[in-house]
Amino acid sequence: MPKARSAEADAREPPPAAGGGLLHRRVLLQRGLVLASAAASAGQAAGEPDPTRPNWMRTPGQPFTGYGQPSRHEAALMRTVAGNKLLPGNGVSWTPLEDLEGIITPSGLHFERHHNGVPQIDPLQHRLLIHGRVRQPLRFSVADLKRYPMRSHLGFIECGGNSNAGWHPEPIQRSVGGFHGLVSCNEWTGVPVSALLGEAGLEADAAWAIAEGGDAFAMNVSLPLSKLLDDALVALYQNGEPIRPEHGYPLRLVVPGWEGVLNVKWLRRLHVSAEPAMARNETAKYTELQPDGKARQFTFVMKTKSLITSPSPGLRLHGPNVYEIRGLAWSGQGRIRRVEVSADGGRSWAEAALQTPVLPRCFTRFRAAWRWDGTPAVLKSRATDETGEVQPEREVLVGRRGLNGYFHYNAIVAWAVDEEGGLTHVYA
Amino acid sequence: MPKARSAEADAREPPPAAGGGLLHRRVLLQRGLVLASAAASAGQAAGEPDPTRPNWMRTPGQPFTGYGQPSRHEAALMRTVAGNKLLPGNGVSWTPLEDLEGIITPSGLHFERHHNGVPQIDPLQHRLLIHGRVRQPLRFSVADLKRYPMRSHLGFIECGGNSNAGWHPEPIQRSVGGFHGLVSCNEWTGVPVSALLGEAGLEADAAWAIAEGGDAFAMNVSLPLSKLLDDALVALYQNGEPIRPEHGYPLRLVVPGWEGVLNVKWLRRLHVSAEPAMARNETAKYTELQPDGKARQFTFVMKTKSLITSPSPGLRLHGPNVYEIRGLAWSGQGRIRRVEVSADGGRSWAEAALQTPVLPRCFTRFRAAWRWDGTPAVLKSRATDETGEVQPEREVLVGRRGLNGYFHYNAIVAWAVDEEGGLTHVYA
Repeated sequence: MPKARSAEADAREPPPAAGGGLLHRRVLLQRGLVLASAAASAGQAAGEPDPTRPNWMRTPGQPFTGYGQPSRHEAALMRTVAGNKLLPGNGVSWTPLEDLEGIITPSGLHFERHHNGVPQIDPLQHRLLIHGRVRQPLRFSVADLKRYPMRSHLGFIECGGNSNAGWHPEPIQRSVGGFHGLVSCNEWTGVPVSALLGEAGLEADAAWAIAEGGDAFAMNVSLPLSKLLDDALVALYQNGEPIRPEHGYPLRLVVPGWEGVLNVKWLRRLHVSAEPAMARNETAKYTELQPDGKARQFTFVMKTKSLITSPSPGLRLHGPNVYEIRGLAWSGQGRIRRVEVSADGGRSWAEAALQTPVLPRCFTRFRAAWRWDGTPAVLKSRATDETGEVQPEREVLVGRRGLNGYFHYNAIVAWAVDEEGGLTHVYA
Repeated sequence: MPKARSAEADAREPPPAAGGGLLHRRVLLQRGLVLASAAASAGQAAGEPDPTRPNWMRTPGQPFTGYGQPSRHEAALMRTVAGNKLLPGNGVSWTPLEDLEGIITPSGLHFERHHNGVPQIDPLQHRLLIHGRVRQPLRFSVADLKRYPMRSHLGFIECGGNSNAGWHPEPIQRSVGGFHGLVSCNEWTGVPVSALLGEAGLEADAAWAIAEGGDAFAMNVSLPLSKLLDDALVALYQNGEPIRPEHGYPLRLVVPGWEGVLNVKWLRRLHVSAEPAMARNETAKYTELQPDGKARQFTFVMKTKSLITSPSPGLRLHGPNVYEIRGLAWSGQGRIRRVEVSADGGRSWAEAALQTPVLPRCFTRFRAAWRWDGTPAVLKSRATDETGEVQPEREVLVGRRGLNGYFHYNAIVAWAVDEEGGLTHVYA
């Protein structure tokens, strides 16, 4: 099909923002990409009979529904499940980040990490127990909790093991979601844990709480009370409605910016204590073996990170043109302050536009304009958060942490573009 | 069941913020409501065998799913459908606002207004035509549009006819959602209309565009180009994923803060013109008959509004105690600046806490603490937006507009609380 392109648009070359074709973003917004087809006819005026009307305008549409679902044309848009053959309820499912836009992950596509499947909990029977080093142990029904003051946190939850394929000696070839999709961003609403702990009354030596989920694994982890008293929630709502079963229905502990495993699903008790429990998921797992033979433990905070979701491996550039580079950035330490992108493998960097609102411990969508000239290129993004921490290059991260860390991989990600417009994951 | 209550909590009476028991919000966050049951036993330490484990912890849970769904215990949480018996695809469905929290409406519960059902559109065949008073008519495929620069708007869409039961001479008795639920709040992402119009090139006399949907009604309305060039989007994504069929899949015109009918679903063309079309839905409908016999037309902007979602009719207070009053406020003119609540029918007002982020043309969740003493009360909320416009009392609105306006009802809403804790809608 012929593409329309005005002589005016050809006449001026847009200003570069960095090497490799990175442009100032206003180029994209002001001038357009000229991708549309020139219409063969000008079309009928609105309201006049229109012979081009498609079949779906010729018969009444489908009726109303009580609860809506995606189009059947989007049936392939799903989480990618990687279960354990011996124990099907143990594994993960990845969010297809490359197919999503904006900052909110639809609840049905929020990533999963389960140890023994999704319990089917009756909310009328479920209770939250707060006990241990408290003056008065308390038991809360879901109905009780709904009457407490609430607060919302629109933010990401990221598995501590997300992106762990980055530790491989060779770059793996997968979609963005299959590589980095153990992170999602939802609005979580519930009761501040501080209100509930305050009601139970803390003993003088109380310093930790062991949170336990009501699944068949009885997943438990230890959290310092300082965080629970700061901004943690006993969440009842996810993106406005009751939490989905696979995300903790009816109650989930939400610990903004801290690693996913601490956001205990199906929360059934908080056992207040003087010391951590040294549970499986804070000793054998979710710790990181360092080059000196010691392991890092209680590495709670998810650090500054970003990646380019489009273009990305599995997608393809359609010939030389101007493209919008799109991606996500986040930090468990607060707001994203800056995202830079490079089209020449990191030799030069241009500042990306950050889509508002930029919220703390939340996905931030970034966008940059790039004119691809059809020659090989290497795309990277690099985030800086409000503490000033800059996302490291992979060689820096590996130099610091070795190759056996497994968890907390947040290095800069590089996509190589070949002359055909294909994309691959590279270490560059 | 016995309720625990500390002597300390009884000793101090919280400070009043207004009459009728309205308290400073920190009361709720600092002192709690003391609704939990004292636990009969202190419970096992985390990790020890626990005889209280429910059945769902004794067998492996459900497997992973590609696309998640709500709990079967929430199957009753649905939109309320009011269809036309003669034409089932003509009607509305209301969002159950009283059962939701935070500011995001789950996509499956976003309200609907259709004229002839939901078309089942093949996205590969769908085209958007821009024609009329343009230099070069253009036709865009969905794939073309996905390559244009994008932008997100997290905001409300409200039907111009929302809350029209407020014009009734007697207060109707329905849930909040059944009365005011033709408003919802999602993240919409897509291409700025300005980029597409810029590419087509506007003729000197171009001033309006007639937007047409690809449904069997061929719904069309006229919009001034100034708004389309300002902040309107051709949206492709809703809460992160492709738009749901009933909300316009694959393309919806999103016009931030303007009445719902202008946010044309299944968008198939923008016909640029010098004058509005004077289509059915801007003449016979979506206009407002005034007391002087003239009708208001092209009343695009949805004005300052708020309502208390909890407590509200259909819910019930469980005896004298401290309650969190919760509600939603929004304005098509920008950000909400202030929400006040009254427990004495408007004689005195206390300022509610606004949950952050407070975003322009978006739901804002407000919260206030209230000690109900068991006597009759009348609850109201009153929003002020950043332009200084204050939500009017009903008698002021009716005095200004009469009772035949039907559209754009945004008066203060009042709930009467009786001695049993029951709630009814009143004009007060």
